[in-house]
Amino acid sequence: MDQPLADIRVIDLTRILAGPFCSMLLGDLGADVIKIETPGEGDHIRRQGEVIDGMSWYFAAFNRNKRSVTLNLRSDAGRDVLARLLADADVLVENFRPGILEKMGFDQARLQAINPRLIVTSVNGYGSTGPYADRPAFDFIAQAMSGFMASNGTAETGPLRAAPPLTDLIAGLYAAFGVVAALRTRDQAGAEGAGQHVEATMMGGMISMLAYLAAAQLSTGQTPPPTGNDHPVASPYGLFTASDGPVAVAPSTPKVLARFLGELGLVHLLDNPQFDTNAKRLARRSELNTLVNERMREDTQENWIERLNAAGVPCGRVQSMGDVFADPQVLHEQMVIDVDHPGHGTVKMTGFPVKFSKTPCRINRPAPDLGADTRTILADAGYSPKEINALADEGVI
Amino acid sequence: MDQPLADIRVIDLTRILAGPFCSMLLGDLGADVIKIETPGEGDHIRRQGEVIDGMSWYFAAFNRNKRSVTLNLRSDAGRDVLARLLADADVLVENFRPGILEKMGFDQARLQAINPRLIVTSVNGYGSTGPYADRPAFDFIAQAMSGFMASNGTAETGPLRAAPPLTDLIAGLYAAFGVVAALRTRDQAGAEGAGQHVEATMMGGMISMLAYLAAAQLSTGQTPPPTGNDHPVASPYGLFTASDGPVAVAPSTPKVLARFLGELGLVHLLDNPQFDTNAKRLARRSELNTLVNERMREDTQENWIERLNAAGVPCGRVQSMGDVFADPQVLHEQMVIDVDHPGHGTVKMTGFPVKFSKTPCRINRPAPDLGADTRTILADAGYSPKEINALADEGVI
Repeated sequence: MDQPLADIRVIDLTRILAGPFCSMLLGDLGADVIKIETPGEGDHIRRQGEVIDGMSWYFAAFNRNKRSVTLNLRSDAGRDVLARLLADADVLVENFRPGILEKMGFDQARLQAINPRLIVTSVNGYGSTGPYADRPAFDFIAQAMSGFMASNGTAETGPLRAAPPLTDLIAGLYAAFGVVAALRTRDQAGAEGAGQHVEATMMGGMISMLAYLAAAQLSTGQTPPPTGNDHPVASPYGLFTASDGPVAVAPSTPKVLARFLGELGLVHLLDNPQFDTNAKRLARRSELNTLVNERMREDTQENWIERLNAAGVPCGRVQSMGDVFADPQVLHEQMVIDVDHPGHGTVKMTGFPVKFSKTPCRINRPAPDLGADTRTILADAGYSPKEINALADEGVI
Repeated sequence: MDQPLADIRVIDLTRILAGPFCSMLLGDLGADVIKIETPGEGDHIRRQGEVIDGMSWYFAAFNRNKRSVTLNLRSDAGRDVLARLLADADVLVENFRPGILEKMGFDQARLQAINPRLIVTSVNGYGSTGPYADRPAFDFIAQAMSGFMASNGTAETGPLRAAPPLTDLIAGLYAAFGVVAALRTRDQAGAEGAGQHVEATMMGGMISMLAYLAAAQLSTGQTPPPTGNDHPVASPYGLFTASDGPVAVAPSTPKVLARFLGELGLVHLLDNPQFDTNAKRLARRSELNTLVNERMREDTQENWIERLNAAGVPCGRVQSMGDVFADPQVLHEQMVIDVDHPGHGTVKMTGFPVKFSKTPCRINRPAPDLGADTRTILADAGYSPKEINALADEGVI
């Protein structure tokens, strides 16, 4: 196999973001992802963001490597088609609110009966059981409830959301990770059975990213207050002002701090009784930042970044997204790619975040037009042209 | 197999956070993770955060399900031991700065010669090739360079880091995802070969999470400015003030907005010529927020959260981390677990973010003491007690 999931078919009932990101990651690994969409409507994201030549670039970016089948799951006939597609699939991914799939007639027992080897994958806000299972989920709320929002911001701003929908994407990534692990388990189980249910949640995923903040809370019962760009236990640290703009500098250990102050011509501060311990440097953070900025202003961002990196001091520009997508390393890593969408022109999107030397991720197909693959896939599933036409006439596909 | 990676051995050269999170995720799936640490010193994280009964809770949380072997990789004898361990391993994970592993004598060609089935996994800041390959990396810098920081914050704060080290954790998660995919590829390749190199980066991982912000930049050449808790294209939306504190509310579609205003007794606003289009609601955001807050103040957080969720309006509390770890859903999902560490008491840590119905993640062993498993693992690798004693006398282990 030239891609890790080249033999895998995914039936994708997801919409919006968390679920589609999961199935996109599986598609990037070579899976055949069949996106099921409501006839005449499709995923709402098809109409979000900038639409150029009839294609939403936001939709295109999160639905690459998928095919589209329209299917009305509110009709019995539509659900029959779904059951037939599931019988031959390896993975089902859904991000409905918990309980919806069951209401459609596809509870775990039925799914298991249809296909005992199916990996059923749920991505949702809080979990499919428990006190919040019925709540509608949304990234903003999961950021608030996970503790992330309380940690983000400054004393002045109070709790602050991060602009990117982190909880959607983290949940989608965990779900994709779970699917591949479950597939490996199934591979080893032989021909029969070994399907199972895999679930990842927006709240659980975000909680797993709290790192030392969670450890601090659990060990001491207290969490450090939000400190913006100031590191709670390192100083100087943060954004400093070169002659033409800010530079982020992270001297996280005494050794790196000495290198940083050395490059600034300020290494004597480490012997100055006002600054000779970390506690003193923290207490006099603003005084120290003033001294550092006086030196930083003497040269440009670019020169400081070159000098400090060469000295082994982690540093870099605060890049706008325009800067990011023109950054030479980002381009070298192919984190922006051009994807040809016949009829819609070329869409630029972010690239593949995991690199494989032998089985690389790639674009096998661009994001599909709504229902573009319905007839092909139904024919492959054994439906005759007459049956397909009848389903179309009834509005099922 | 009762866990997806129960047959897999990982040699873990990682330290601090991004790499250890990757190997932790593999350990949670059942892999036998052997953490290689410098004799007498070990991972710096062993000394970070709150240390209780000799165990850092931060270290414990990110090094569960690992064994520890001390090995001086600056010595020829230490590197010989590493080569012997790699010959029998399935995965190597490292998060050195690019080039360091090669300088130790383990370039890809040698690793391939030692073990053609080895999955060699690198987690680093920017990529192992390209213009920034030699730069030291750090979460704060990757947040700045990825565009994340420019998107986070408000017009007043300017670019703002998120407190949790997101870029470390996202890179570690992508790397673990890549490892499992590469293992599946290898399984299917049969007994010979099919090892490969897998890489994930802090900057690439964060870029992949920019979602619609990236799509906006790539499609229009412009990125929306940071808007704090205000949604750039939805109003009312954000944090509102109940009688006893803030409530996060995300009415993201016209249908949900009507439900929200209905619960507030304000549905008539949708017919008010001042507020009857989304454009008007955005233009009069602060006026509208005032009207919403007047009603929100009439009841408590808890009551609003119950009412609005029941009406299908995504909402929730802004939880402190203390709230999070006492939240009934978080407890139901076992996102806080108690792990017994013999000699160090019971450590509380965050739980498993992916749930498997048949092959669940679990604690097979707590985080190890430094070098606790050195003698066992060297004996298993064929070293005699005499040889092991000699290595100890020479300071190699």
